[in-house]
Amino acid sequence: MEEHVIFVGNKPVMNYVLAVITQFNTGAGEVVIKARGRAISRAVDVAEIVRKRFLTDVDVKDIQISTETVEGSEDKANVSAIEITLAKK
Amino acid sequence: MEEHVIFVGNKPVMNYVLAVITQFNTGAGEVVIKARGRAISRAVDVAEIVRKRFLTDVDVKDIQISTETVEGSEDKANVSAIEITLAKK
Repeated sequence: MEEHVIFVGNKPVMNYVLAVITQFNTGAGEVVIKARGRAISRAVDVAEIVRKRFLTDVDVKDIQISTETVEGSEDKANVSAIEITLAKK
Repeated sequence: MEEHVIFVGNKPVMNYVLAVITQFNTGAGEVVIKARGRAISRAVDVAEIVRKRFLTDVDVKDIQISTETVEGSEDKANVSAIEITLAKK
């Protein structure tokens, strides 16, 4: 199955909410919401707004957290990441 | 079983990491890390640092997200929340 992924960054929450809704409305059975660092809180907001306010037939199927290494010009830094999988019930 | 809960707020990440480690070292088999709003990212950091850097016999058992209603003096606001359950393998 093709994977539908939305990367959450620093734009307003509703941008990502609309992106997720569009994926479901164009045939996706599952959408994965990914974020790193401070955007993790926003990713949780996106998932909650989608399933509570807009698509009540969608629920959280899985949540994974991990640590990613980001390489800068001189050093490396560890950053936490999250993947929230939403799926139609 | 008694539930061991750590609420993550605005203090430095290592404060909460130490609190979680202390719970495990004093007999807890599971520790639940809870946070709301912007502190959600920090809660993920706490879980990742505990299991990757300090307690390698501990892993993520469950992650739940939810929406809580916070009542102010005049209005209500919805805020996302997370609960990360860490458990000994």
